[in-house]
Amino acid sequence: MSSDRLPLPLKDVVERLAGLPGLGPKSALRAALAILKWPDDRARGLGQAIFDLRDRLHVCGRCASLAESDPCPICADPARTGDLLCVVSEWDSLLVLEEAGFYKGRYLVLGGLLAPLDGLTEAHLELGRLRARLREGESRVGGLARAGTLPAEATASFLKNLVEREFPGVVVSRLAQGIPLGAEVKYMDKETLRQSLAHRQRL
Amino acid sequence: MSSDRLPLPLKDVVERLAGLPGLGPKSALRAALAILKWPDDRARGLGQAIFDLRDRLHVCGRCASLAESDPCPICADPARTGDLLCVVSEWDSLLVLEEAGFYKGRYLVLGGLLAPLDGLTEAHLELGRLRARLREGESRVGGLARAGTLPAEATASFLKNLVEREFPGVVVSRLAQGIPLGAEVKYMDKETLRQSLAHRQRL
Repeated sequence: MSSDRLPLPLKDVVERLAGLPGLGPKSALRAALAILKWPDDRARGLGQAIFDLRDRLHVCGRCASLAESDPCPICADPARTGDLLCVVSEWDSLLVLEEAGFYKGRYLVLGGLLAPLDGLTEAHLELGRLRARLREGESRVGGLARAGTLPAEATASFLKNLVEREFPGVVVSRLAQGIPLGAEVKYMDKETLRQSLAHRQRL
Repeated sequence: MSSDRLPLPLKDVVERLAGLPGLGPKSALRAALAILKWPDDRARGLGQAIFDLRDRLHVCGRCASLAESDPCPICADPARTGDLLCVVSEWDSLLVLEEAGFYKGRYLVLGGLLAPLDGLTEAHLELGRLRARLREGESRVGGLARAGTLPAEATASFLKNLVEREFPGVVVSRLAQGIPLGAEVKYMDKETLRQSLAHRQRL
């Protein structure tokens, strides 16, 4: 069903919702009709929460992640060891690692990956924050998963060069590439196999 | 990923979005992260549009549909013939019929179907509006699709009895049940076949 015949306020909501990932025009209409049937305060609550979202979240001055406070709870936690710095491209990677719960160090959210053809150059990355953190004495840098894609590889080697040039002595590593748990060798792609063979882990 | 580790404002948006049809916790998180990456005015625009939605829509005093004006454009349109009244259970059915574009009469949105076990009795239906419309001289009542379900059948026969008792001379009909275009007899359910046989249409 096209949204042309909808009253303007509803059409407005449908078209805006349809811009969200996972929602197309049809499911956006279904969602908007559901909002109409919600109790008034629930509908307003959703609108208000979305409206306020950006104002209520701050970029942490140390790691560039999003939090209610600055510094964020992770950077402010003295129990998180400071000598390993996990560099992630986006905040969602941080959330996944935190959810897993075994990493006890701190983070730096790079804010993207290098993709010069899309206009994403090193000016878009949080290199100032990275240098500041390394100057404070964090002596190892790890992270940057999403291996295999060209921007991720380009960003990883760019960072490696930058850190080794400006901070001799700081060790740069990345998350191991290899065969995921439960997967079979016969279904792996060639590049993953190459990496997993080249970086064999001792038993 | 659970939303427990999210900052409160984001968790709030994720949990509210997850209440929409078609969005689960994971897709709600994806949607919320997308909103965070939107330009500020786009994110606020969505929030504002949802917040205002109910205030900007009015229930049409004649047909109980939702519109920016009261009466709605359909009821206010003198070109829509007044003698056939199409009763639909919910507003979305009206939207689908309007989208198809061949019905040129007016509507009445009943506001639900009879389902006494779920507490939906005739007090929940727009019977006052229906009576007022019939008193004005609309002489035929049609509509109420969604055939085959118990609440739809119950509501249809309740309406038929009410109209025939209170407005003798008004003809009550319903959308034809039968085999949809392009479907094959061998795949039809028994009840559809029974209906399509009982209500054969002349060629």
